[in-house]
Amino acid sequence: MADDGATTVALPELPLLAVLPGTGGLTRLVDKRRVRRDRADVFCTLEEGIKGRRAVEWGLVDEVVPRSKLDEVAKQRAAELAARTDRPAAARGIVLPPLARTIEGDRIDYSHVTCEIARERGVAEITVGAPDSPPPADARGVHELGAAFWPLGLARELDDLILHLRTNEDEIGVWVIRTVGSAETVEACDRLLVDHAADWLMREVRLYLKRVFKRLDVSSRSIFALIEPGSCFTGTLLELALAADRSYMLDGAREGDTKAPATVRLTGMNFGACPMVNGLTRLESRFLGEPGRVDDLKGRIGQDMEAAAAGDAGLVTLTPDDIDWDDEVRIAIEERVAFSPDALTGMEASLRFGGPETLESKIFARLSAWQNWIFQRPNAVGPKGALRLYGTGERGEFDRRRV
Amino acid sequence: MADDGATTVALPELPLLAVLPGTGGLTRLVDKRRVRRDRADVFCTLEEGIKGRRAVEWGLVDEVVPRSKLDEVAKQRAAELAARTDRPAAARGIVLPPLARTIEGDRIDYSHVTCEIARERGVAEITVGAPDSPPPADARGVHELGAAFWPLGLARELDDLILHLRTNEDEIGVWVIRTVGSAETVEACDRLLVDHAADWLMREVRLYLKRVFKRLDVSSRSIFALIEPGSCFTGTLLELALAADRSYMLDGAREGDTKAPATVRLTGMNFGACPMVNGLTRLESRFLGEPGRVDDLKGRIGQDMEAAAAGDAGLVTLTPDDIDWDDEVRIAIEERVAFSPDALTGMEASLRFGGPETLESKIFARLSAWQNWIFQRPNAVGPKGALRLYGTGERGEFDRRRV
Repeated sequence: MADDGATTVALPELPLLAVLPGTGGLTRLVDKRRVRRDRADVFCTLEEGIKGRRAVEWGLVDEVVPRSKLDEVAKQRAAELAARTDRPAAARGIVLPPLARTIEGDRIDYSHVTCEIARERGVAEITVGAPDSPPPADARGVHELGAAFWPLGLARELDDLILHLRTNEDEIGVWVIRTVGSAETVEACDRLLVDHAADWLMREVRLYLKRVFKRLDVSSRSIFALIEPGSCFTGTLLELALAADRSYMLDGAREGDTKAPATVRLTGMNFGACPMVNGLTRLESRFLGEPGRVDDLKGRIGQDMEAAAAGDAGLVTLTPDDIDWDDEVRIAIEERVAFSPDALTGMEASLRFGGPETLESKIFARLSAWQNWIFQRPNAVGPKGALRLYGTGERGEFDRRRV
Repeated sequence: MADDGATTVALPELPLLAVLPGTGGLTRLVDKRRVRRDRADVFCTLEEGIKGRRAVEWGLVDEVVPRSKLDEVAKQRAAELAARTDRPAAARGIVLPPLARTIEGDRIDYSHVTCEIARERGVAEITVGAPDSPPPADARGVHELGAAFWPLGLARELDDLILHLRTNEDEIGVWVIRTVGSAETVEACDRLLVDHAADWLMREVRLYLKRVFKRLDVSSRSIFALIEPGSCFTGTLLELALAADRSYMLDGAREGDTKAPATVRLTGMNFGACPMVNGLTRLESRFLGEPGRVDDLKGRIGQDMEAAAAGDAGLVTLTPDDIDWDDEVRIAIEERVAFSPDALTGMEASLRFGGPETLESKIFARLSAWQNWIFQRPNAVGPKGALRLYGTGERGEFDRRRV
């Protein structure tokens, strides 16, 4: 920060707007920067902010520098940080072409992902496809393939779809996720990602997948996974079922259908590459009460589990057979759509993030729901609310009752 | 639970009322009982609840018993639990007489605690007194003293006052806490509490104090501590300043006042007896970023620290001198009262509970603010809200937008 007597840092939201600093500003103060709580209290109520040496002493900024040297020092610090990378200096990046996305009416199509919005039912039906052909045999082949490597394409497309639905379809409260395709090709991709742990491109793809699944976890939508004959909930794609609020797996074959009964399959990707915001894998979060189950499941990597076995292993929620499937799934979805969206957002954020909390879970799980409260209160957004009056010169009028 | 085909357990709040189960019901499911998250999801949306063996299998109840044996088995389990106590079988309890509380107008008086409500300013001025005379020399003397033992009286009176103000004075948003009296007598009491760790009565008193300070932490009121000449922020009473959102300590003597400058003093009670809901002591929570400071402070137990030393040690927030004191304190309190109560509740709950989270912090820190959001939304309490319509036979009408 420039040490020029005028430059300050400030979180003036509370005094000026009657809301909290966005995206976990308060948690970033006390948990990320570990600013002492009473100093944080003073800081967050000072419209004018804090400058100079006190900002350093209180841990609000790392360094103050004369304004004349600010650019130079910032560049130097950035270069020092960049020099710490373990990426080979000769590594060549890959090209990310624009996503091939088409939106026609209520249908959104990508290469591996499609979404049908059943608007009258309030449901988005999402189908994710496994790769059509096996991946390259080694890491070099993946570098040559670049953006066409299926896990990378999957991450980009799912990410885009999640953001699209979150931003543009706020009345579609239930996302129903299916998968389709070959477990073998997904498992082969997963093996590349896990076995080449040190390769920089594989690492970036794993990190990208991790972020996309985390984004799913923190989306304020109900998520159901449907596991039916012909589906492919394997490894990376099984994370979708584990991220869901609940999963239904059809037990046995469908009458008159030649498709084999549905199976799920674990791969190495389910055991560490994709932690949630609470720092645990989805399996660890699922078995908080029985951590031994995760170790047992490690021994079953690569096995196909039909509904009964998957149910016993705790990997799926309910396993209706063909006779009950249609009604049970339909009613569950209809009921879900009928519940209060606010209550669902609160419930899902509570149930999804059991166990330990981290800086991230505090910001993205706890505060995302919590801050909404402050932002919806009349003291912020009512006719005399501070957020509404900001800039008019008038001050907010507050209901003084504490709750 | 009775296994009679009719008895069920249920959390029907979400489907019936569009709110969340009270006092952390969801967190108690996934964090306390460690119910698998997808099963918790199903359970929380089932109006009719779950009964019999499935309730045991899902971890919702510990045991199902035929209705004819329910009383007998419950008594047996209770007796088994009670038998585990380490309290001597011959121990005699003490009598807790009714609290001596008088309320006259805006003044509330107890033996050791007084509170003046400055209604027009929105402030409660709380003063806590040290004991007038030294405590007994040993544990047996404390048992004889019973309810008159100062730490026990303090706990009971503070507890009562906090609950009174929280319940009956919801427009009084700022609590200003002062102390008065002799550091020696407080330190002597603290020594009894710490040294006789195994005595059952001392343990109950420590646990009671712990609970009272925790209640202070989770109160949705701004808390300021004022440390002035004549005050007694020693040990147990210093916890009040450490629980405050901020503390002001007058640096030096007051002009024309013969009282010595204010000091603060640590005792053994500040280092473990009174953890917060996050599992840390208030000192550990305060120095999340510099844990070594807590060890350093342990070496300073019993020392009187004036404002400069207390400021350097990080025990107090601001240390104005006599010239600035009156204006600085007055303006800080006036500003606080002028801010949005909702935003303050959110901010304080964020800043008070940095660091680790526990079952308790999730329920009493996170959810107490969070649940308010659900309870205030039109989908629950609006004209067509589910909470308002419950019992009328009509169903709620919901705004479907997710936030």
